Amino acid sequence: MKFKKRKFAIVGGDLRQIKLSQYLSKKGYEVSIFGFDKNKIELKKNIMISPSLKKTMEDIDIVIGPIPCSRDNTTLFTKYYEGKILLKDLFKCIPRDKIFMAGNITPEMKIILDNKKVKVIDLLKREELAILNAIPTGEGAIQYAMENSDITLNGSECLVLGYGRCGKVLANMLKGLGANTTVEARNFKDLAYIKSYGYKALHLKDLKKHIGKFDFIFNTIPSLILNKEILNEIKENALIIDLASKPGGVDYDAAKELGIKAISVLSLPGKVAPESAALIIYNTIFNVCAEMGVTL
Amino acid sequence: MKFKKRKFAIVGGDLRQIKLSQYLSKKGYEVSIFGFDKNKIELKKNIMISPSLKKTMEDIDIVIGPIPCSRDNTTLFTKYYEGKILLKDLFKCIPRDKIFMAGNITPEMKIILDNKKVKVIDLLKREELAILNAIPTGEGAIQYAMENSDITLNGSECLVLGYGRCGKVLANMLKGLGANTTVEARNFKDLAYIKSYGYKALHLKDLKKHIGKFDFIFNTIPSLILNKEILNEIKENALIIDLASKPGGVDYDAAKELGIKAISVLSLPGKVAPESAALIIYNTIFNVCAEMGVTL
Amino acid sequence: MKFKKRKFAIVGGDLRQIKLSQYLSKKGYEVSIFGFDKNKIELKKNIMISPSLKKTMEDIDIVIGPIPCSRDNTTLFTKYYEGKILLKDLFKCIPRDKIFMAGNITPEMKIILDNKKVKVIDLLKREELAILNAIPTGEGAIQYAMENSDITLNGSECLVLGYGRCGKVLANMLKGLGANTTVEARNFKDLAYIKSYGYKALHLKDLKKHIGKFDFIFNTIPSLILNKEILNEIKENALIIDLASKPGGVDYDAAKELGIKAISVLSLPGKVAPESAALIIYNTIFNVCAEMGVTL
Amino acid sequence: MKFKKRKFAIVGGDLRQIKLSQYLSKKGYEVSIFGFDKNKIELKKNIMISPSLKKTMEDIDIVIGPIPCSRDNTTLFTKYYEGKILLKDLFKCIPRDKIFMAGNITPEMKIILDNKKVKVIDLLKREELAILNAIPTGEGAIQYAMENSDITLNGSECLVLGYGRCGKVLANMLKGLGANTTVEARNFKDLAYIKSYGYKALHLKDLKKHIGKFDFIFNTIPSLILNKEILNEIKENALIIDLASKPGGVDYDAAKELGIKAISVLSLPGKVAPESAALIIYNTIFNVCAEMGVTL
Repeated sequence: MKFKKRKFAIVGGDLRQIKLSQYLSKKGYEVSIFGFDKNKIELKKNIMISPSLKKTMEDIDIVIGPIPCSRDNTTLFTKYYEGKILLKDLFKCIPRDKIFMAGNITPEMKIILDNKKVKVIDLLKREELAILNAIPTGEGAIQYAMENSDITLNGSECLVLGYGRCGKVLANMLKGLGANTTVEARNFKDLAYIKSYGYKALHLKDLKKHIGKFDFIFNTIPSLILNKEILNEIKENALIIDLASKPGGVDYDAAKELGIKAISVLSLPGKVAPESAALIIYNTIFNVCAEMGVTL
Repeated sequence: MKFKKRKFAIVGGDLRQIKLSQYLSKKGYEVSIFGFDKNKIELKKNIMISPSLKKTMEDIDIVIGPIPCSRDNTTLFTKYYEGKILLKDLFKCIPRDKIFMAGNITPEMKIILDNKKVKVIDLLKREELAILNAIPTGEGAIQYAMENSDITLNGSECLVLGYGRCGKVLANMLKGLGANTTVEARNFKDLAYIKSYGYKALHLKDLKKHIGKFDFIFNTIPSLILNKEILNEIKENALIIDLASKPGGVDYDAAKELGIKAISVLSLPGKVAPESAALIIYNTIFNVCAEMGVTL
Repeated sequence: MKFKKRKFAIVGGDLRQIKLSQYLSKKGYEVSIFGFDKNKIELKKNIMISPSLKKTMEDIDIVIGPIPCSRDNTTLFTKYYEGKILLKDLFKCIPRDKIFMAGNITPEMKIILDNKKVKVIDLLKREELAILNAIPTGEGAIQYAMENSDITLNGSECLVLGYGRCGKVLANMLKGLGANTTVEARNFKDLAYIKSYGYKALHLKDLKKHIGKFDFIFNTIPSLILNKEILNEIKENALIIDLASKPGGVDYDAAKELGIKAISVLSLPGKVAPESAALIIYNTIFNVCAEMGVTL
Repeated sequence: MKFKKRKFAIVGGDLRQIKLSQYLSKKGYEVSIFGFDKNKIELKKNIMISPSLKKTMEDIDIVIGPIPCSRDNTTLFTKYYEGKILLKDLFKCIPRDKIFMAGNITPEMKIILDNKKVKVIDLLKREELAILNAIPTGEGAIQYAMENSDITLNGSECLVLGYGRCGKVLANMLKGLGANTTVEARNFKDLAYIKSYGYKALHLKDLKKHIGKFDFIFNTIPSLILNKEILNEIKENALIIDLASKPGGVDYDAAKELGIKAISVLSLPGKVAPESAALIIYNTIFNVCAEMGVTL
């Protein structure tokens, strides 16, 4: 008996979902897509847009939604689509007992889908996706730093604020480029790891005293760590790259006032490396299915 | 008012405690030591051994014991001492309200000391000590690998089993030496980090299939992972360095039978780098005191 | 007797010469500059443009010209200057017995200056400048690669063609970012070094066979190595960054025809990191003076 | 027409020649060996020692001698052989028109062999062999440093004297292990490369001023650089690993007097990694033959 390959529906999203549908069809899966306008995005020949949301769902096994699913809790996030897709319409169309994966699925969305026995996976809660996304995020941060500075990272003094997923990957890359890399953390455990990897370790409480020596400051901590008092100590011509989600880790008004260049950069994977980001989603989908016992 | 520096008692242990007492006295602390024989260990001029356990405890603030505290739950671990120090005698001598730090303090020991209002700190439960100890452990593992092989690590195929504290530090050093480094783990999170640091990632379930390509296999997992079935697939002349505590991660009988070289290496920090190990203890003591609000 | 600091004249050039004059004046040297228009370039307050070429040369010890000195062998290279400065006019103004440093000084120029007993230094012939310039060149190449690709360098297959100054520095940075780095060379000596640094080594004669696996190809060899025959084997979506000076190392017509993205990037130090580039010139000037026995 | 594989004679040497003969026979070449006693060295089953020097030379194409060829210019260097083989007897036996490769072939030896039309290759003059030998040399130096110190290399201050083949490879490994790595050189070109690889650069003229901060000092310069004046400045407990050939780079009498630990380590590849060293010879032989147009 020959095993029939699963069919995917890709609904909405950005360039990553397009690339993802290409990976899937290259691997021999059937893919139907919706929520993209032909004139807004260049599609590969083998990618066909479905005529309707309903048609998209025919015979499918797995539905992949955007990351994040929605930005207003009402409509689906669709970067390359003129029209609007209501979440409730999408959920109505997903066939019972199928699988739905997307990013930032709210408890309200989950209740609706649970009622239809749709298995729901929030991709942004998958730790391997978050970790692997730190790679394009780190590289993107480096690209923005290069573009916005008159000096090289090699040989410069770099500070990474925070030693979570992004901090770890970014510090490793900066050191690899030849930057003198210092990492800030606030617990002894992280500071021990920081030392063991050969970075200089800086305790949060000493931040004010030492911040004046850095050429590049990368913030990964989602709280207002670079406040006016700290910004006041920063070296002329230093560059701040803020990776923390809104409202970010920088007092931007104070920075402007002091003439300090501070750039907030968000959602880097989809921007700087959509193809790598799509591959990360692709691999995560396979991990999820393996864990659920779903053969692909 | 001038602040009076704390006085330490160092009781028993190995070379690390000797080095530790040197660091402390170099920093200006008063130190009394006991549980070492002059003819068994070369002491610096400024280090004086107390005439008795009781004398050692006079005017002290902090007592530092061995790591581990005891190997038989009855006597204190004293590597360079002919006599015996009973734990109960030691605990009797520690003055009320003082601080006692050592490794592997059992609940029974803790109860006795709690009753005397002695503050008890198990140093082996301090995560920063465990993390920093991974550095001399990793270097020691590399030293043993170099000593027991006819090939260089540079350019060789190295496998690290496990991605905990030791696995992380060891993999980083092996890669730094120019080894082709693969790390085994069993959860997608660790595998994602492994990839992000540029190692090859190997899932435990694929171990048997791939183990045959490795020249060096470093085990950090405390369970019998290298059993007969796996050993059977290992390449001739491969070297296994087992860092897992007894009974270790290797079926040593099977290894012997198959002619595979497998070496169990334990307690590396004190053996290969007692001075670095002492410095790690020293720093941890200061972290502990900072957290307890004890000024040093 | 107090030692009088040397006076510099900076004549023509680009952003690097401006930054250089800032470094010099920050260090306490007197600097006169010419060959820049105030409305074309933002000058620091302490930088004054001389009213005439002749005035610029008053009391100076060392004249710094552009890098390269000229692009047409007749006029001085002046990026931010409306007017024209003839080389012969410049040379007439340089006082006898002084020092002139610039890039690409032709034998003809040298004869004229030799006749005036002006000591001539071609900065582009200084090996340390060329080596240190490989740092901003390497970083710039990486920046362009990031900007022009949908995938991350981390985890990608990168090929560096040539193992001279740029090849060495670039390969080291790519590996540091986590790219799988292969370096091509044609002699056994370079191939041995390539292996010893942990890169994969590729002999030129095997280029055609293996080129198809690479995502990024960085060319540093100043000859037509990526000809039609080789380009034909390159993977779809691969990106070529060509660092070789004109006419470059790529058959650009063939690349266009085959739909391969190939980018020629030149003079990177001044473009991506003018401040670092200026610091390199600054340090080289000091090395030159130290070697000549000129106290600064 | 089927191509007949070449036959090798391996005459004298150490463990590397034994390993080399194993590699050759594993690759399908016929190998005859002489200059080893069965009871002195464990041989693989497929390796047969010839009954006489003359017999060894029957039908061979290439003769591989020891590295170095001789230590007294009269007898062949044979580490595992009771008897003596005179160089003149060996040269008499090598058939006309064949190839002879060994290390340190003197002009006198070359004349004798030239007269017989024997093609002579001094393996120690092959740059790729010297470069690749820097790998086991560097690793061996690191092993000796680990064995002779109470501190870890990770986190220590390491100085590498000289930036030739060994200096380059060793500095890269030390940095990879997490040591703070400084490299000394005396010309601006090397100092520029040193900076570009992210090491701290130290000019020879500043050696005395800075030597006091280092925990480990690795010397690769074949001249008395660590003289009494310099040794006087070295930190207590520092360790010197001297890789320079006799008489070495250290005033050993002064070091002893000052209580400084200095270790001379020579011929590391054959000692710490004979198998890797043999593979390097093996590859060099193939490179030599390729360059000579000899098909293997």
